[in-house]
Amino acid sequence: MSPNAPESYIDVLIIGAGPAGLTGATAFAAAGGINVRIIDQRASKISVGHADGVHARTVEVLQSYGLAERMLREGNQLYMYAFYNPNDAGEIELTGRAPGVIAPTARFPFVVGLHQGAIEAIFLDFMSQNNLIVDRPTRPYAMEISQGQPHSPSSYPVKVTLEHLNAPTDGEKTEVVHAKYVIGADGAHSWVRQTLGIDMVGEQTDYIWGVVDIVPDTNFPDIRNKAAIHSENGACLIIPREDDKVRLYVQLSEDVVDPSTRRVDKSQMSPEKLIEVARKSLHPYYLSLSSEIEWWSIYIIGQRVASKYSDKDRVFIVGDACHTHSPKAGQGMNASISDAHNLAWKIVHVLRGWAHPSILKTYETERRNYAQDLIDFDKRYAALFSGKPRTLENQEGITHEEFSRALQIHGGFISGIGVHYYPSAIVNTKHQTSAKNLVIGERMPPQIFIQGADARPVEVHDLLPADTRFKILVFLGPLDGSRLVKVNGLANDLDAPTSFLRKYSIDGQFSHIFDIISIAQGDKFVFNYLHVPQIFRPHWSKVLLDDIDVAGTQGGGAYERFGINPQGVTFVIVRPDGFVGMIAPSTALEDVNEYFASFLIPHTC
Amino acid sequence: MSPNAPESYIDVLIIGAGPAGLTGATAFAAAGGINVRIIDQRASKISVGHADGVHARTVEVLQSYGLAERMLREGNQLYMYAFYNPNDAGEIELTGRAPGVIAPTARFPFVVGLHQGAIEAIFLDFMSQNNLIVDRPTRPYAMEISQGQPHSPSSYPVKVTLEHLNAPTDGEKTEVVHAKYVIGADGAHSWVRQTLGIDMVGEQTDYIWGVVDIVPDTNFPDIRNKAAIHSENGACLIIPREDDKVRLYVQLSEDVVDPSTRRVDKSQMSPEKLIEVARKSLHPYYLSLSSEIEWWSIYIIGQRVASKYSDKDRVFIVGDACHTHSPKAGQGMNASISDAHNLAWKIVHVLRGWAHPSILKTYETERRNYAQDLIDFDKRYAALFSGKPRTLENQEGITHEEFSRALQIHGGFISGIGVHYYPSAIVNTKHQTSAKNLVIGERMPPQIFIQGADARPVEVHDLLPADTRFKILVFLGPLDGSRLVKVNGLANDLDAPTSFLRKYSIDGQFSHIFDIISIAQGDKFVFNYLHVPQIFRPHWSKVLLDDIDVAGTQGGGAYERFGINPQGVTFVIVRPDGFVGMIAPSTALEDVNEYFASFLIPHTC
Repeated sequence: MSPNAPESYIDVLIIGAGPAGLTGATAFAAAGGINVRIIDQRASKISVGHADGVHARTVEVLQSYGLAERMLREGNQLYMYAFYNPNDAGEIELTGRAPGVIAPTARFPFVVGLHQGAIEAIFLDFMSQNNLIVDRPTRPYAMEISQGQPHSPSSYPVKVTLEHLNAPTDGEKTEVVHAKYVIGADGAHSWVRQTLGIDMVGEQTDYIWGVVDIVPDTNFPDIRNKAAIHSENGACLIIPREDDKVRLYVQLSEDVVDPSTRRVDKSQMSPEKLIEVARKSLHPYYLSLSSEIEWWSIYIIGQRVASKYSDKDRVFIVGDACHTHSPKAGQGMNASISDAHNLAWKIVHVLRGWAHPSILKTYETERRNYAQDLIDFDKRYAALFSGKPRTLENQEGITHEEFSRALQIHGGFISGIGVHYYPSAIVNTKHQTSAKNLVIGERMPPQIFIQGADARPVEVHDLLPADTRFKILVFLGPLDGSRLVKVNGLANDLDAPTSFLRKYSIDGQFSHIFDIISIAQGDKFVFNYLHVPQIFRPHWSKVLLDDIDVAGTQGGGAYERFGINPQGVTFVIVRPDGFVGMIAPSTALEDVNEYFASFLIPHTC
Repeated sequence: MSPNAPESYIDVLIIGAGPAGLTGATAFAAAGGINVRIIDQRASKISVGHADGVHARTVEVLQSYGLAERMLREGNQLYMYAFYNPNDAGEIELTGRAPGVIAPTARFPFVVGLHQGAIEAIFLDFMSQNNLIVDRPTRPYAMEISQGQPHSPSSYPVKVTLEHLNAPTDGEKTEVVHAKYVIGADGAHSWVRQTLGIDMVGEQTDYIWGVVDIVPDTNFPDIRNKAAIHSENGACLIIPREDDKVRLYVQLSEDVVDPSTRRVDKSQMSPEKLIEVARKSLHPYYLSLSSEIEWWSIYIIGQRVASKYSDKDRVFIVGDACHTHSPKAGQGMNASISDAHNLAWKIVHVLRGWAHPSILKTYETERRNYAQDLIDFDKRYAALFSGKPRTLENQEGITHEEFSRALQIHGGFISGIGVHYYPSAIVNTKHQTSAKNLVIGERMPPQIFIQGADARPVEVHDLLPADTRFKILVFLGPLDGSRLVKVNGLANDLDAPTSFLRKYSIDGQFSHIFDIISIAQGDKFVFNYLHVPQIFRPHWSKVLLDDIDVAGTQGGGAYERFGINPQGVTFVIVRPDGFVGMIAPSTALEDVNEYFASFLIPHTC
């Protein structure tokens, strides 16, 4: 290292510009005011292949950053799952079809197929509009976390030495960065993880698969559906993609594995051989190619989780650096995006001095629990996939019913909609009964309301952007006579200095950290939104009605659906990442104050 | 004129870059391969005020050019119409509210409020992506259409002399353009219309109105709804807009009219005075301003239509150059956009040698009929608006019921959804009974189908882009056994040299001028899209199913809704502008051939 290497001080250094790193960078850029850098050792972003299934919850996450529209326009949408099994003649035939996504509350009830490079481009374009560019090809080669006295919010305890691989001169090759926080998003072979000495816990399987992206010419009727084929010649999974492309996963035998290392040997395989394997599996249907093969790979399934996700809550690992599993349920990129989405707002809150650093511990508890669940799920799913089908000769094989039932059971998990975070400082289940169908620790479900001022239907998700604010949904009930007196009283309570709204206001404004959305019951043809007390309507668009829209086609029924009693007033607190953090009746305002007191810092200016 | 003025030869010259001219320019740019120029005498586009209501059908038109998304994002959406009348104490009070758009089949059942400049920017950005820029400030000062022998498709009979107002030197001031076609989109005082000597037929009213754009601070409960206020202090109309803005229309008295000219005298009025008038009308509600007044104007309502829309089918007028009327039903910009949308594809077809020039005559018959209807409607509507309300003292006044009934009756007209073109070469009603609820001569209604190959729900409107192609919707019915034989036979008939598909193919490909969309009946869980004969599925995405989607929330029921018998096969021919041009049972294929023979030219290559 050059003795004159430039040194700089930044809030956050992100190492790795795959989906996890880019989500983090996007979140910091969207938050604003964070001094963030992101580096990647590859000279350019990937353009083909790799991960490509974006599940329902991930689409919601992208929507919360305003990035879903483009992805939906560019990607394929998968709605149907088809199952093929051998008939008595040993040829595959359609056993049945089923919805491709089992998640009744999904706002986007499908899987988006779009290659990883296109998804990364959506993040990169957003970042570049916010003046954040990936520094590449650049890699870290040393990292140390300062020891000794406790770190203060203003200290920069992580020192990372970077190497700029394309530096024109030796003097420009090395740089030292002092960061408050470092995020290792550097993939399955994570340098950050290894440098921290974190183990991967879990094991390798015997399942070996190949994957290839093609534009097919075929008479297979389900080539535009997700199709799981269990044939006597091995299993094959078809995933349709954008631009008429299709991804084929085919099961391979042991001969592509190096017996000494138990690693796959890509030289033993070729894309043409993969197509041959697929052809056998698809028999009696034909399969030709309409264009050149775009990308292919082979892999052996490993199912491992990092033993911890952080060192001193200053360096974190996210994405593939934390968990590896089979790609067939398409969870990898989705889990990575949600890891970073979970972590970023917490770091922002701590950096701004809004939240105690202890909030950062919830990243590992929430996301590592999830990853464990993911591996458990993956084991069952991969076994079902890679197992032999039940046939006349093989009564031990897997039946279509077993496979289908597993999908039903795990639908919420696969889609990401069912992801559940357990109680912690930021997940408080004390008053779950106040809205028994809104699960605390799960993401706020979508719901159409209509705006009280102008009867416009709005999706509540669009009022829950990832803008680092807690959203306070106030279910006011009807606003007639005596209730109005009660609601006005509550408005006064919330305006008191002891209320969380005032106690954690920033520069005298609660709107920096909280957004208030009030949801009344009433008839849009007579409702007067001006009757809602001012504190519950920071803008006219923030007063919603639980009523059907003027066209009579959407909205209404939310109180009943959520299990909220309209005779009371109920607070639903949605975290900046869209998860329900707490629910409370207005009579328990003190509990809400305590909830926030457990992790927010009163702001004195 | 300089003797050395540069001369050029182009396909189309558009004079005027308001909504009508920009729609035309957008349509030609989208079509591709048309040598088009557009000029405007203003040095820059308008940025505030002017027209701002985009009705349901106009949103559909913009959608057909791929331009609706941005407008929907930027604009306000109006769903509710509120009516205020005097109570017995003489103060206004809410009489009732009603849906703001009465058009049950509207895909976008609301009015978009967005100022004209923002809408023009959407067109301008699309044009600039297609290398088409408005030439400004430039005005025409001479135009002649060559006389004598009939014009051939390759002649440039219209000579227009242009003056570049900002030309740096005198030599660059003048330019001569020889155009095949000229479109006068130069507004109410159209130079093109005057040069052609076309009269405006109709009359001035006594209704005088002022209009002002503000950001209000008020306790009026319907400030975010469209609100018609009939007070004893005059009428007022409120139209909410983007960015918390509101447009107020207020009725004015005779003293702003110059008695000698019967023109309004803007110097007799100020925006502050307009606000004062509005305040009186809104009493007892208060009205203050939260920001400066952005734009204001006053006008006297004239209701006139041009006596003809074209000279020799070489020069056309569109938009305000053809019709003037009151702005309160917000029809001006909408009619202008639809004029140009109607005309552009016809000119493209003639320029490409696909259609007989006689098709151009349908522009005037279709759009002038509409404008006459518009004026008739406007007379009734303006009278209702400007009349006194019925009160205890004034039993001759207009009741809320009369007003409300008029809106119900004219809802289809106001929204543009009900616009109806009468029989002509391109509107053939012979087989209307084959789909009795799909009105030939009206725009194809929206309908959700699901794609046969992958069960993805799609809106049929998204398969009807304004790409200059006729869309052939083939309602195939169910595809079992004996019917499949019949459908295969029909496929052979369509593939015969005498069939319109082959006869009007361009360079051997029918896909240049026709797009085929087949719509089968069947169950998505068993349907095999490969059973549809190849000619009916130019791409896998073109096979639709009339079935409900996998989520069970949309799609299905189209055969019944449209009144199509699934036991037969039915063609529905949608024109490039989205209007149903013809319907026929497959047994009347000869009539379809004749329909196209009446205006298309067989292509021999």
